[in-house]
Amino acid sequence: MVDTTGSGYTDDELDLDLRWWAAANYLTVAQIYLQANTLLRDPLRADDVKPRLLGHWGTSPGLSAIYTVLNRHIRRTGADWLYVTGPGHGGPALVAATYLEGTYSEVYPHVGQDAAGIERLCRQFSTPGGIPSHVSVQTPGSIHEGGELGYALAHAGGAAFDRPDLVVACVIGDGEAETGPLSASWKLPAFLNPRRDGAVLPILHLNGAKIAGPTVLGRSSDADVEAYLSGQGWTPMFVEGDDPRQVFRDLAAAVDSAHDTITGLQEAARSADGGGHGRWPAIVLRTPKGWTGPHTVDGVLVEGTHRAHQVPLSGVRDNPEHLTLLEEWLRSYRPDTLFDVEGALVPELAALAPVGDKRLGSTPYANGGRLRRPLHVPALERYALDVAAPGTTFHETTRVFGELMRDIYAAGTRSDGGGDFRLFCPDETASNRLGAVFEVTDRCWQLPVTDFDDGLGPDGRVMEVLSEHLCQGWLEGYLLAGGHGVFASYEAFAMVSVSMLIQHAKWLQHAVTLPWREPVSSLNVLLTSTCWRNDHNGFSHQGPGMIDAAIPLAPDVVRIWLPPDSNTLLSIADHCLRSVDHVNLIVVDKQPHLQYLTLDEAAAHCAAGASVWHWAGNEPDAGEPPDIVLAAAGDVPTQEILAAAELLRAWVPYLRVRVVNVVDLMALLPPGDHPHGFTDASFVDLFTVDTDVVFAFHGYSRAVHELLHGRPDPGRFHVRGFSEQGTTTTPFDMVVLNRMSRYHLVIEALRRSRRVPERGDELVAYCRAQLDRHREHVVEYLEDMPEVRDWTVGSTPPPPPPPSA
Amino acid sequence: MVDTTGSGYTDDELDLDLRWWAAANYLTVAQIYLQANTLLRDPLRADDVKPRLLGHWGTSPGLSAIYTVLNRHIRRTGADWLYVTGPGHGGPALVAATYLEGTYSEVYPHVGQDAAGIERLCRQFSTPGGIPSHVSVQTPGSIHEGGELGYALAHAGGAAFDRPDLVVACVIGDGEAETGPLSASWKLPAFLNPRRDGAVLPILHLNGAKIAGPTVLGRSSDADVEAYLSGQGWTPMFVEGDDPRQVFRDLAAAVDSAHDTITGLQEAARSADGGGHGRWPAIVLRTPKGWTGPHTVDGVLVEGTHRAHQVPLSGVRDNPEHLTLLEEWLRSYRPDTLFDVEGALVPELAALAPVGDKRLGSTPYANGGRLRRPLHVPALERYALDVAAPGTTFHETTRVFGELMRDIYAAGTRSDGGGDFRLFCPDETASNRLGAVFEVTDRCWQLPVTDFDDGLGPDGRVMEVLSEHLCQGWLEGYLLAGGHGVFASYEAFAMVSVSMLIQHAKWLQHAVTLPWREPVSSLNVLLTSTCWRNDHNGFSHQGPGMIDAAIPLAPDVVRIWLPPDSNTLLSIADHCLRSVDHVNLIVVDKQPHLQYLTLDEAAAHCAAGASVWHWAGNEPDAGEPPDIVLAAAGDVPTQEILAAAELLRAWVPYLRVRVVNVVDLMALLPPGDHPHGFTDASFVDLFTVDTDVVFAFHGYSRAVHELLHGRPDPGRFHVRGFSEQGTTTTPFDMVVLNRMSRYHLVIEALRRSRRVPERGDELVAYCRAQLDRHREHVVEYLEDMPEVRDWTVGSTPPPPPPPSA
Repeated sequence: MVDTTGSGYTDDELDLDLRWWAAANYLTVAQIYLQANTLLRDPLRADDVKPRLLGHWGTSPGLSAIYTVLNRHIRRTGADWLYVTGPGHGGPALVAATYLEGTYSEVYPHVGQDAAGIERLCRQFSTPGGIPSHVSVQTPGSIHEGGELGYALAHAGGAAFDRPDLVVACVIGDGEAETGPLSASWKLPAFLNPRRDGAVLPILHLNGAKIAGPTVLGRSSDADVEAYLSGQGWTPMFVEGDDPRQVFRDLAAAVDSAHDTITGLQEAARSADGGGHGRWPAIVLRTPKGWTGPHTVDGVLVEGTHRAHQVPLSGVRDNPEHLTLLEEWLRSYRPDTLFDVEGALVPELAALAPVGDKRLGSTPYANGGRLRRPLHVPALERYALDVAAPGTTFHETTRVFGELMRDIYAAGTRSDGGGDFRLFCPDETASNRLGAVFEVTDRCWQLPVTDFDDGLGPDGRVMEVLSEHLCQGWLEGYLLAGGHGVFASYEAFAMVSVSMLIQHAKWLQHAVTLPWREPVSSLNVLLTSTCWRNDHNGFSHQGPGMIDAAIPLAPDVVRIWLPPDSNTLLSIADHCLRSVDHVNLIVVDKQPHLQYLTLDEAAAHCAAGASVWHWAGNEPDAGEPPDIVLAAAGDVPTQEILAAAELLRAWVPYLRVRVVNVVDLMALLPPGDHPHGFTDASFVDLFTVDTDVVFAFHGYSRAVHELLHGRPDPGRFHVRGFSEQGTTTTPFDMVVLNRMSRYHLVIEALRRSRRVPERGDELVAYCRAQLDRHREHVVEYLEDMPEVRDWTVGSTPPPPPPPSA
Repeated sequence: MVDTTGSGYTDDELDLDLRWWAAANYLTVAQIYLQANTLLRDPLRADDVKPRLLGHWGTSPGLSAIYTVLNRHIRRTGADWLYVTGPGHGGPALVAATYLEGTYSEVYPHVGQDAAGIERLCRQFSTPGGIPSHVSVQTPGSIHEGGELGYALAHAGGAAFDRPDLVVACVIGDGEAETGPLSASWKLPAFLNPRRDGAVLPILHLNGAKIAGPTVLGRSSDADVEAYLSGQGWTPMFVEGDDPRQVFRDLAAAVDSAHDTITGLQEAARSADGGGHGRWPAIVLRTPKGWTGPHTVDGVLVEGTHRAHQVPLSGVRDNPEHLTLLEEWLRSYRPDTLFDVEGALVPELAALAPVGDKRLGSTPYANGGRLRRPLHVPALERYALDVAAPGTTFHETTRVFGELMRDIYAAGTRSDGGGDFRLFCPDETASNRLGAVFEVTDRCWQLPVTDFDDGLGPDGRVMEVLSEHLCQGWLEGYLLAGGHGVFASYEAFAMVSVSMLIQHAKWLQHAVTLPWREPVSSLNVLLTSTCWRNDHNGFSHQGPGMIDAAIPLAPDVVRIWLPPDSNTLLSIADHCLRSVDHVNLIVVDKQPHLQYLTLDEAAAHCAAGASVWHWAGNEPDAGEPPDIVLAAAGDVPTQEILAAAELLRAWVPYLRVRVVNVVDLMALLPPGDHPHGFTDASFVDLFTVDTDVVFAFHGYSRAVHELLHGRPDPGRFHVRGFSEQGTTTTPFDMVVLNRMSRYHLVIEALRRSRRVPERGDELVAYCRAQLDRHREHVVEYLEDMPEVRDWTVGSTPPPPPPPSA
């Protein structure tokens, strides 16, 4: 336990701060309830109350109390704080606080610092055409929505990385503390470097209840909570009570003490070398849910229980008793003493807010685009693979991305060891062939290091933790505070945190509509170790569903890239790293794959989004439409479609075959449905108007059909893709199990071709024989274990020459 | 710390158990490496080694040691244990153990207890046509795959609920312990009832490394780990070392002690009333990664580091030195002393396994279909809503499901307070209008209860925790151990645990192919508080993406149901609760919605999957095709499509309008692609062959297009659905924002209709005027706050009569 009695709060200062808090609470209640008479200049009438009451009171007074005490600390120290509101449904509290400090009116001038502004503030809350009920992207000072719970502490950690002057106050509701992602986030001290990073001060706000019941930590003893946090590297201070004067004093002392401890840790680490194994402070704040609100309603206890969660007084327009209670509640804050005759906050209270960018609502750390500097991406030539001829060499495709990131790391390292780019990866950086980054930095690790560790150290800035939630959440916080980064994941397990990606896309979708929000770097997700090549790990590791989850999200935000080889990956990576306000999924495998394009060709191909690969097809007559189009998106599909084209060229050379490669998946959408959507003319140039298309796709086949609606005759597209067949097996067996092998594609192409080619039947028979041979081979493999090298690189023996004509 | 010196292990017994462990380790290495000479009767040759080495050695010896010690405990006590293998990649260890105990050969007779069987065992591992490398559904004794990490302890908890005689040994790898879901799972003691439930013994197996680096708990001090676990209700015992004799003695003592503590807690709780606030035991086992394997390879330390994770010796066929090391390693286990001349385990070792269903591989708790009893679902009539005429009354649709579950709970309660049905819900049971269950049981809660709590108590069996991961994981474990249940979630936040649902679907997909796995109850997920009616919570709460994630999964497993009202929900719920081996998504909102069908009509409608609602359409000429088909799937879409039909009937009564309602979404798939897929004839009966269809859909519109590929002229379907537009607003504004309102649907229908009706232009003008009026209304709402009751129930004023003809 830490002594929290030494805040040095004078009675006068405390009186003023309690009045500021009362103003925040007043405006919170007013937002939830009032549509008129919002300063209560007249007796409250039923008509003053909104017809529909939406909002969450329970957590709000605690959030405002923390805000008030942080303001005091900023006033006294000039420190840079960022406020992350885990209980995001306490939106009206944060809106009220940022309004009182003036930020709100600066970014939303139509909500001025007067009676009309307050009425507007109240009316717009949770109202059609107004603002959401949560601490959302529309709230100044926020990098965190808090609707889907669990990510507050991960976001806070991400925002603190490489921001040495920042302290993030992260309020964690005790409901949120039951979630998995939040539970994992307490491991932050193992990853937060006191020399180069900022600090995070978790404020575990235990008001004891969630929507409908108590919470585990809320009902746990102080001793248990202390053990729980201390075992994870924190030293918690407990602040508890329902007497505002006492709680404010204790909380202020705890904040002061925490900040002193943080400063001490950081100074030690920054002056000497090393350091940094001290424990970080944390605050456990136990205050009643719905503090200062109605204590009992209709004879039932409300304050301090889950019944205070949303609207403690309901039916106010029809229930005179409740109307009276509401008026008493509102007047308990003495609004007449808080706002002047014009409706402006009285000067002595207005003076309590920090100034300028020190205000929590104005800090640039919460509007990271203000801090963001364009990333220096080195020229790609130095990483480009030499591709003499398409499809003749193998390379582990992702390696070049690791080399590119290595040099981004190196070029961007600051003198204090920080920077503004990080790679986040759940323990798979090396596995994903991105290990080049370890030539210039280590895995970040604040716990003990042994002499047999590789690439591990306190100053490392590659973030590896076996939690997709933490990787994703840290990156989101890092980006929203102005950094750049990449999250690299096994494709299947990116789904672990897909809901976070969805929420981030929603955030960006609305952020771009707010002129005051500066653009932030895109969320770049590399999905590798893909379904087709997780043959060594088996079915649990085989799942391309992230594509399906991302397609329906905001078209202004989401891009999905399927580079077929290393040079296209470089081009895509370069584009994504320079982009802002997007979510980029880059899907490409790490294993040795055939390489096709030179860097120049790759750049042109990626800029186009999709191209006809003339060298792979067979269209001798320029004016004639092809008999069949073979299309592919993704590395393994490209390999198989090219092998299919090769078989067709060899066996039925008079068949007009076009090969199309698609890199930019969303370009398949109609132009009205996505900014990248091909124009009708471009689409027809690629796919014709009526030729059948056999399409080999990286993901689930129907995802392509989903995109193609609205295109000419979408029924002519015949897509093969991952059909949820998998196990521990060979790469070639994977394409056979999912019926996307070259042989399946040839059979489908011949079935769909505009012309029935001579000797087509023979080729079909050949393909069927090859598939039969494979099935026998599988059995044979189990029985006799032949050499399988060719199979492991995803190649089959070249097709035999066609029978002599 | 607990004294672990009192195991009472005699030297003889220990010698035998160490030999049994050696046999397990031998077979583990042999599975990874050998294709011939698998008993090492001859000197090891390069050709004996598999051409492709796949598997994970590092965790395996620890897993086998635990297995051996548990066997000893079972021999001595006859206790029922279930072994949950968090580090699922230690598959060969569990396969080896279940082979040695005889279970494996019983369920797979082709892998016999002789030399040929051992060769088969080795060859099949991680081989095409063989078995996966993980502890997967194919592994006897497993309810947990462990490929996607994080769910071991949740699965263990679920398996223990309502199984009072069971102890679940849950091995948690230290990598897994970094994940969010696992971190949340430690809160189990707040939810595990010693009177009626079984016990879970977590064995945190800290071998210190994951794939490529150390782990947080692996590098944390014992004191920190103890604080971390004790703060969450556990009393950990530490077992550490690399001397097998010592570790076995200590581990055996810890297991004995833990079991004694568990028995004591349970007896106290079961004899007296109440009890049960004691702490549960846990074991922290620190052994080297790759224990007993190669200590150093090529001069580099392997044992005890991340380098032992997979295959510690590589290139064995080409590297004679590695080949020698492999042979020495294999022979270190003395296979000649373990297996007799026929290749059978020597009798004194074979005698160490428990017998029959006491064997960990044979326990019925891991093959829950053996324990499952059909659920008693009461007759639906008592819950049915009285629907006098379609679309005339409102009801909170999900309420009837709560009433049904209430009576399922009541009917199934055992004398000890347990049962075999549970509802799992993240703190939303009441919010989701399922609160009727609290008439017969409480929320489960083992922490202190206060006098102001509602429906909360230690004997409650409604599982509320603010973690979708825990709800989902507990339910999965509960089902796989033979129970029945429902997971009810806010629709948007079901995505938090979607990857678990995907993994469970994969499990079921393969389970049904194994004759020895008895069918288990389906995973029933109720998605409510849907995107259309989370108008009060805002954009973060609005997301129907679960449908998109589920569609591509195994068609034999996944069903998606969109009941439009209460009686259809009852019919669907009844079907789902009786079904086995499926994943059922039931998507329906909780708010007051219009009700349409009687129970009999609902039963017929659900059995059909989709029906023409003749009463809502306008097809006077039986033989004539309709001019337009209006289709809907989902409650709000149904309401809007019916309102659109009503407008068309009123304004353009000579237009032939058909109304189709779809309940069984997967029936839209072609019959070859899903067992529920409508035949072509049925599809045409509903949708004709060429009439345009305006389809109002609950989810993202392109999900319907995805399903329709393969149907006649899919381009004629014009789908309106959720288009990722949302905020805190009114229900009607939501359908307008997403362009799925009745007015949008009418405009689309008139645009697509086969005939251009007279007065169609007037109706379009009317609809546009209504939408303009709405937009004005939104502004007006913000300015003047009119009464919005009609809007909150999702209804608009009835359409005015058409202009006189």
